[in-house]
Amino acid sequence: MLTMKKQNIRTLSLIVCTFTYLLVGAAVFDALESEFEKSKKSDLLKEEMEFRRNYNMSDKDFETLRENIIRSVPYKAGTQWKFAGAFYFALTVITTIGYGHSTPQTIGGKIFCMFYALSGIPLCIVMFQSVGERLNTFVVFLVKHVRKCFRRSSTEVSQTHLIFITLNLSSVVLTAGAAIFSYWEGWDYIDAFYYCFITLTTIGFGDYVALQKNDMLTKKHEYVTFCLIFILFGLAVLSAAMNLLILRFLTMNTVDEKREEMEAAAAARGAVRLDGDVITANGSVVSGAQETPEYNDLISVCSCSCYNLRSRRKLPRYSVTQAPGKITHLLPMTQTGGGGARVSTGGGGSGASGEGGGTKNREDSHSITDDSVSYLANLQYLSKKRASI
Amino acid sequence: MLTMKKQNIRTLSLIVCTFTYLLVGAAVFDALESEFEKSKKSDLLKEEMEFRRNYNMSDKDFETLRENIIRSVPYKAGTQWKFAGAFYFALTVITTIGYGHSTPQTIGGKIFCMFYALSGIPLCIVMFQSVGERLNTFVVFLVKHVRKCFRRSSTEVSQTHLIFITLNLSSVVLTAGAAIFSYWEGWDYIDAFYYCFITLTTIGFGDYVALQKNDMLTKKHEYVTFCLIFILFGLAVLSAAMNLLILRFLTMNTVDEKREEMEAAAAARGAVRLDGDVITANGSVVSGAQETPEYNDLISVCSCSCYNLRSRRKLPRYSVTQAPGKITHLLPMTQTGGGGARVSTGGGGSGASGEGGGTKNREDSHSITDDSVSYLANLQYLSKKRASI
Repeated sequence: MLTMKKQNIRTLSLIVCTFTYLLVGAAVFDALESEFEKSKKSDLLKEEMEFRRNYNMSDKDFETLRENIIRSVPYKAGTQWKFAGAFYFALTVITTIGYGHSTPQTIGGKIFCMFYALSGIPLCIVMFQSVGERLNTFVVFLVKHVRKCFRRSSTEVSQTHLIFITLNLSSVVLTAGAAIFSYWEGWDYIDAFYYCFITLTTIGFGDYVALQKNDMLTKKHEYVTFCLIFILFGLAVLSAAMNLLILRFLTMNTVDEKREEMEAAAAARGAVRLDGDVITANGSVVSGAQETPEYNDLISVCSCSCYNLRSRRKLPRYSVTQAPGKITHLLPMTQTGGGGARVSTGGGGSGASGEGGGTKNREDSHSITDDSVSYLANLQYLSKKRASI
Repeated sequence: MLTMKKQNIRTLSLIVCTFTYLLVGAAVFDALESEFEKSKKSDLLKEEMEFRRNYNMSDKDFETLRENIIRSVPYKAGTQWKFAGAFYFALTVITTIGYGHSTPQTIGGKIFCMFYALSGIPLCIVMFQSVGERLNTFVVFLVKHVRKCFRRSSTEVSQTHLIFITLNLSSVVLTAGAAIFSYWEGWDYIDAFYYCFITLTTIGFGDYVALQKNDMLTKKHEYVTFCLIFILFGLAVLSAAMNLLILRFLTMNTVDEKREEMEAAAAARGAVRLDGDVITANGSVVSGAQETPEYNDLISVCSCSCYNLRSRRKLPRYSVTQAPGKITHLLPMTQTGGGGARVSTGGGGSGASGEGGGTKNREDSHSITDDSVSYLANLQYLSKKRASI
């Protein structure tokens, strides 16, 4: 249950971090925007009052006009639901950008939008992650060949390298995109950059939205194409960066679940030993080796082909001490893949240690431990032999 | 390169799927909304013209008024940037909901918003995935105990069960949330449901935004708290569902990268065999077993502790045939974790097969294959022995 606790503690500390982060953010935004809001609010109100006085407009009339103006914003911006616009909207739905520059107004549209997002968003996430991963692999490939061309001693690409390259690529996309948008939309560069950033992070406020001037959606086909490609390519590049930076963190707890499966297996082995089984010999070795801290690295899911350069140094090539480490992170995989389900339910998180699975575990564990006994024995023999060579 | 191709084909087909999905979506949205847009547009325009005629308003004046009304929308909705509002905004940023109901207007606010999102979004994603995973584990735990109470023969929880439960929980959150929002905001139920859905998928159009009436942000503290909790809990529940449904797909290509590392290792072993090394014996067995299709399942990252109940049936408990399967998906993990980096660069996707690492691979592979020879030998011996018992 120790590792179990660890996972809950990790989750709790993540929650605490997020809340602290939110509080800090709220404080800063308050400090930055509150004053401006107050002054802006009074200015706009003054202006409005002046208008209403000049035109001697009744409250009711003004409210109707206000309603009218607000509702006609998307229509003033151009035809939103002809094919190009509808495609643009569909893209903002499945990428979860959701500018809201124009939204379905019919009940049918709203309901379809929900069903559309339901399967579209997962598809999109998987697609972008996949493209991002390919992009990383391609970058690795390119860098290797460039280095070979320049006759560099090592053609290896460390993850730090890869992250560095991907982040640079992302900033190139942002800065270049910002330049183009500021040209087409007539925004200040900083606003265009802000638009690109808010879009590619899929926040999509909708305070700045491309293609919302002079009916561009229906008239400027080349610009529409650029916008769609920018969003798709930009998101792919950012997914590549995300794939490198956080994908492995998403599976941290899962990795610990696997470790628990190992412990369940070890426990089962322990139980079997009490019955005086063949396995006795190495039950201790295995359970001892389960504390190997490298386990997380070992089944990290980072997609770049070189992320474990670090851990390489940790592990001597021909050492007996490493052998148990090998087995113990290998065994649970056997279990997980093979008859592991019963054991895994034994290790299934937050006290899910299935009392029901206990007896089954004993039978299961035979197939593992017997093998590992001989594996270990031979491994030790071989490594000694090799050491003596 | 065969598996390499496979990954590119997978990515390409995902791209094709997404584009087809977008085209279909665009067509449907066009069909659903175009007509309504046309009629609505003309209605609003008529109304506007009538107003301007009645009040005999110049174009310039009307444009100024229009500008004023649009810009004052967030301010009319209440104080947006006092602490509660700023917190609400910060939440919509790091969750990437991004309603855009109120957005930073100062350059400082915009720049801080970008930096804030830069580290906030990854933190948020990792946090929600972590909470989602805990939630799944807790559900497994609960169901197990409920079943035990009811003296059910099996206390195991299949992944299908878990997905079913999580999806039900999600829909409960949506429907209950919708009811509460429709009460507080005075929306139709369908609109409230649409709001909840668009929010929890982080699309966040901003056409419906909670807390934007009668200065609720500063007055209705209990409702503000409910909104924040709804968003946070709702996203956690949806992350739990996502964790079960798509997290494993995110690592598909990565898993294939690992398989390529195996192939690189096997290739290295092959090379060593030519030099007439001890390893000869099982080079074939390993490379033969590498085609095991279960490999994907074996290191799936799904967090639920029971997802591999399926594959259990596939694999008999004491069979020699399984043994190589075991080893061959275990070895690369050793490689990946231990001295694998060099080999992995060998398998590093799209032709990245590092010629630079070739000779190193030879040395590396000793430690694995020697062991696995003896492992195999003993495994076969033991399994025969067991079979005869």
